[in-house]
Amino acid sequence: MPENFFAGADVGGTSIKAGICNERGDLLHLIEGPTEAQQGADRILANIRKYVRQAAEEASVPWDQIAGVGVGVAGFLDIPRGYVKTSPNLPLANVPLKEHLEGALGKPVRVNNDANVAALAEARVGAGRNVGSIVMYTLGTGVGGGIVVDGRLIAGSSGMGGELGHMPIVPDLEAIQCGCGKMGCLETVSSATGIVRMAKDALRRGDQTVLATLETLTAADVMEAAKSGDATAQRIISRAAHYLGKSMAVVSVVVNPARFVIGGGVGKAGEFLLSQVRDYFRKYALEKAQEGVEIVAAELGNTAGVIGAAMLLQDA
Amino acid sequence: MPENFFAGADVGGTSIKAGICNERGDLLHLIEGPTEAQQGADRILANIRKYVRQAAEEASVPWDQIAGVGVGVAGFLDIPRGYVKTSPNLPLANVPLKEHLEGALGKPVRVNNDANVAALAEARVGAGRNVGSIVMYTLGTGVGGGIVVDGRLIAGSSGMGGELGHMPIVPDLEAIQCGCGKMGCLETVSSATGIVRMAKDALRRGDQTVLATLETLTAADVMEAAKSGDATAQRIISRAAHYLGKSMAVVSVVVNPARFVIGGGVGKAGEFLLSQVRDYFRKYALEKAQEGVEIVAAELGNTAGVIGAAMLLQDA
Repeated sequence: MPENFFAGADVGGTSIKAGICNERGDLLHLIEGPTEAQQGADRILANIRKYVRQAAEEASVPWDQIAGVGVGVAGFLDIPRGYVKTSPNLPLANVPLKEHLEGALGKPVRVNNDANVAALAEARVGAGRNVGSIVMYTLGTGVGGGIVVDGRLIAGSSGMGGELGHMPIVPDLEAIQCGCGKMGCLETVSSATGIVRMAKDALRRGDQTVLATLETLTAADVMEAAKSGDATAQRIISRAAHYLGKSMAVVSVVVNPARFVIGGGVGKAGEFLLSQVRDYFRKYALEKAQEGVEIVAAELGNTAGVIGAAMLLQDA
Repeated sequence: MPENFFAGADVGGTSIKAGICNERGDLLHLIEGPTEAQQGADRILANIRKYVRQAAEEASVPWDQIAGVGVGVAGFLDIPRGYVKTSPNLPLANVPLKEHLEGALGKPVRVNNDANVAALAEARVGAGRNVGSIVMYTLGTGVGGGIVVDGRLIAGSSGMGGELGHMPIVPDLEAIQCGCGKMGCLETVSSATGIVRMAKDALRRGDQTVLATLETLTAADVMEAAKSGDATAQRIISRAAHYLGKSMAVVSVVVNPARFVIGGGVGKAGEFLLSQVRDYFRKYALEKAQEGVEIVAAELGNTAGVIGAAMLLQDA
């Protein structure tokens, strides 16, 4: 029997990555092209089709050996139907992505959100490859999440499984409103946006901090200043780490994963951030839910989306 | 092929229930006898064996048609090994329950904690029977929890899946220490013990309340007083409902179940409690994680433990 291959596409706001994986999840070939989101939904769909076919061709994998196509996209989805309800950074509203691509490509198609596919990839071939169950946090503009239990993604009854950024974790008295409309979501403090917001608040209050000397202000700036000993920046990063660690303590008595994996831009801060998150996790989590649990950095970087998308076809 | 039957035992502090179920989860026969916990672990094991065999005999099911035996027991367990590490109300510490019973009964045995087996029963044949995924809270002396996703229990990497009573949900400033050693666990406010503790605090502060006229004070008394309009009792029940509802908002962005099921003694308060829990859930939960989600009372009452234990044998 000839080997099966799987195509994956990671659809971002500015570019689409497409790649071909074998059954073990090895990424054989990866290409990247513009999303052309400003041209509308039809152009985005056409580009996904084009890049997926091109990736197979360049990988020298005959199209009839592609067993299926997986797509990861930022947004709120009807996962079983592969339907994009809304997307924060793409003009995709009520788009039947799975149905369209199955018709156009003649292959089984599975669609899931970007944070879930990254979690699936890390669980199978990345930072969680030798444990069955991981919970992944993707710390970027928002806080994405994905949960894999015994090798399977937890999608949830309405596709909201692993939407960890919207966990109401900040106490009411210090909560601010999230983009989702609710108060005190994790991503109001532990995302890049949250970190920059807290830094701007500190500057407005007149805090003495090296951040005041910068023309623009990014989460990476705040992280660097904290590493260099700036007290204001340290307090901000500590707060981001506090609620991340506390949210892990919460998750540990829900699904009790063997490993927490942190990825995304903010996650690149590495041990400086991770060690603080671990301290807060240990402070809050039930002792027996800490046994053998590790908090580690993601391993796959920006290829996780394509690999995880391709692996959706193997997700039971 | 003859039909398969399953035996289940629900091991409590004062009595053991044992019963026989068919493959559909119908409870054909139920017996109950004393645990004799004060006689030690060996007596408890002997009684489990005795009641299980007796239940099969009285149900007229030949022993060789019993496909396996499931046991539910309060405590922290190594679930895959069926090993009881510690139990709050039984002298079972480091007892290899599964290994012992498999040897003595000559059947496959599965062991899980009482809250998990109740959740499995409610998911399969109770309040969750027409949806795939439920999260159950058992509100008693403590707060137990069990999570079933796509028909399967989430045990967790160290057996702490669904230990919802130990979710750190009460903000630091108003948190008290839980029996587990951590601060602000859900069960410090939403269990019978938590409700009585808050009532005693109110009496010590000199609150004007009908509770002051009672000789003893139970959670049921506080619930009755709240239903009758006593302001102090209402504030206490409202606080218990607040953190229950908020914990469901948290769980809804982790596993996003279709239904939350509330059982246990405190859960018997019915709509008076449920309607308040629903209000807080709606206040805190991500809108998209509320879609189609229901919060309902458990249906199986005190037979859930035996039925769920028997169904462990069918849990993939």
